[in-house]
Amino acid sequence: MAGIADVARAAGVSKSTASRALTGAGYVSDETRARVQAAATALGYVPTTSAVSLVTGRTQTIGVVMPTLDRWFFAHVLEGIQDALLERRYDLALYGAPPESEARREMFEHFLARKRFDGLIAVGIEPSAHELERLVAFGKPVVSVGGYDVGTNAVSIDDHAAGRIATEHLIGLGHRSITFIGGDPDGRRTSFGDRQRLDGYLGAMRAAGLEASARHSPSEATMPGGYGAAADLLGDRRNRPTGLVGVCDEVAVGAIIAARRLGIRVPDTLSVVGIDDHSYADMFSLTTIQQKPHQQGRAAVQLLMWQLDDPDAPTHRIYESSPLIVRSSTAAIDDEASAIVGVRT
Amino acid sequence: MAGIADVARAAGVSKSTASRALTGAGYVSDETRARVQAAATALGYVPTTSAVSLVTGRTQTIGVVMPTLDRWFFAHVLEGIQDALLERRYDLALYGAPPESEARREMFEHFLARKRFDGLIAVGIEPSAHELERLVAFGKPVVSVGGYDVGTNAVSIDDHAAGRIATEHLIGLGHRSITFIGGDPDGRRTSFGDRQRLDGYLGAMRAAGLEASARHSPSEATMPGGYGAAADLLGDRRNRPTGLVGVCDEVAVGAIIAARRLGIRVPDTLSVVGIDDHSYADMFSLTTIQQKPHQQGRAAVQLLMWQLDDPDAPTHRIYESSPLIVRSSTAAIDDEASAIVGVRT
Repeated sequence: MAGIADVARAAGVSKSTASRALTGAGYVSDETRARVQAAATALGYVPTTSAVSLVTGRTQTIGVVMPTLDRWFFAHVLEGIQDALLERRYDLALYGAPPESEARREMFEHFLARKRFDGLIAVGIEPSAHELERLVAFGKPVVSVGGYDVGTNAVSIDDHAAGRIATEHLIGLGHRSITFIGGDPDGRRTSFGDRQRLDGYLGAMRAAGLEASARHSPSEATMPGGYGAAADLLGDRRNRPTGLVGVCDEVAVGAIIAARRLGIRVPDTLSVVGIDDHSYADMFSLTTIQQKPHQQGRAAVQLLMWQLDDPDAPTHRIYESSPLIVRSSTAAIDDEASAIVGVRT
Repeated sequence: MAGIADVARAAGVSKSTASRALTGAGYVSDETRARVQAAATALGYVPTTSAVSLVTGRTQTIGVVMPTLDRWFFAHVLEGIQDALLERRYDLALYGAPPESEARREMFEHFLARKRFDGLIAVGIEPSAHELERLVAFGKPVVSVGGYDVGTNAVSIDDHAAGRIATEHLIGLGHRSITFIGGDPDGRRTSFGDRQRLDGYLGAMRAAGLEASARHSPSEATMPGGYGAAADLLGDRRNRPTGLVGVCDEVAVGAIIAARRLGIRVPDTLSVVGIDDHSYADMFSLTTIQQKPHQQGRAAVQLLMWQLDDPDAPTHRIYESSPLIVRSSTAAIDDEASAIVGVRT
């Protein structure tokens, strides 16, 4: 296999110039860089990355830490990060770190200290005070996605607005009895954004004078979680709401399935709105607030590269737009049902 | 931060002995290794991994390549790999490589050649002849999971047996008109295992003398895919089967949802069996063949480490056991329906 000396000879430059041109460490003119790169490509030269790392202090690797993989949101953020890194020929080092797990302790105590990556993307991670300390000691760029804002660069939708807009959609259709379904009450096992979506719902209910009828039916933020919570909630005929806001589409879809099993027609007697525009949304004709986690992953890489190129660059918070997509799981409440709700509240 | 010289001084050994003890390259007595490691831990010494790599030729990183992340199977295999690597303090470098994508070409042309990992786990990858060549040139251990057997170490369930057993379960319940639903006919966009599951179904139908009524209704191996295919299939009353074998649970669940929407009762007039024991299976009372992708991921790491420790170790193929889990989506066919089917076939 060709070595750096072969490349230097073919390009007519010294070995150290060839090395600078290929690693990006130190000054080389654009013309020389292009000539060296052409020679390297022609000769099939692949640098020994351990040696490159010792020279540049760069690993060409980005670390990604996330609490779980088996969720639509996380899988698609990861694919977006992966695609953007591949274009830049960076490696992606993945660390699964469920809340309060041994793996999570290992990540913050051991893997961060090894500094085997040039920067870190934290997806849906709400760090403890101690973990924040470790992130600061890490001393390299950090970008957070869809979670707690650690004072660094961050990418997400405006979760509070998403909860509010979904709720206002139902209020605008005449619904008065609207329950927010899904998400953990203590917030530890779900993403930080779930709490903000609930707050957005509560804000909209308050603003419409519906505070007294606001209710939260907690569940795991999954399809089976939403199914179970909705089955309990809708099984009680006397307190059945006419509208549901799901903390995410998986919960909303679980609720629709539960409603169908109970013989409750969607949207005739129950309107359901979700948040995500999950790949299942279309199949269930689900009205939802759209987010594109793949794009959020790409944006996180963009912010990280910016920070790597210019450590003095200001930090940014990017809110991805999240439009309401109206399908047919929501409808205006009919007058009769509306009158009954009017009596009840 | 403490350096290797500090560790050597504290342990009362030379710098080169301390280095050998910490990197594992070259002989050191167990007693000395323990003393050096204790000193390193006490001082909080973290080796510069680029320097370690130059000495040992090891990167302490394992590469993982898979076609997609947003599927239950792949997410759980990845979590299993992740857990097993974390215990061994290895890093995981992830490469997403959808079939026939630019990312896949990049992976095989560029990332493999850089040799930035000590071994590779290929999940659900069916390599082309050219890609196989690249894998051989890579010259490091490769383990495949759940996919095509590339003549290396491999882990999967016996997909052929899974398809056969699921089908025999329905035949044993008296079903004669059984359709296999899901999976791509050309096999390019699905896993290699899907084709084997279909072959297992065909074998069971043949063995029971039901070859003439065997049918495959292709679809994407997802819940919306299964929903769409089942809606088409079951919408035609005259040719409606009494039993469905889903290529995976997501397809089987989609079929159950389609059946409910058409007013077809499961299992009264339609039995449905899946393969996976997906996290949704319980919610839909789905009879299925169980596999545990998390354990397959762990087993892949085990095989890879074995190969790294002893390059002359023989290659292994591990079949994970995959028992039939009977829930209530399948039932014995009632006599009347059976008689009608009898007339039809």
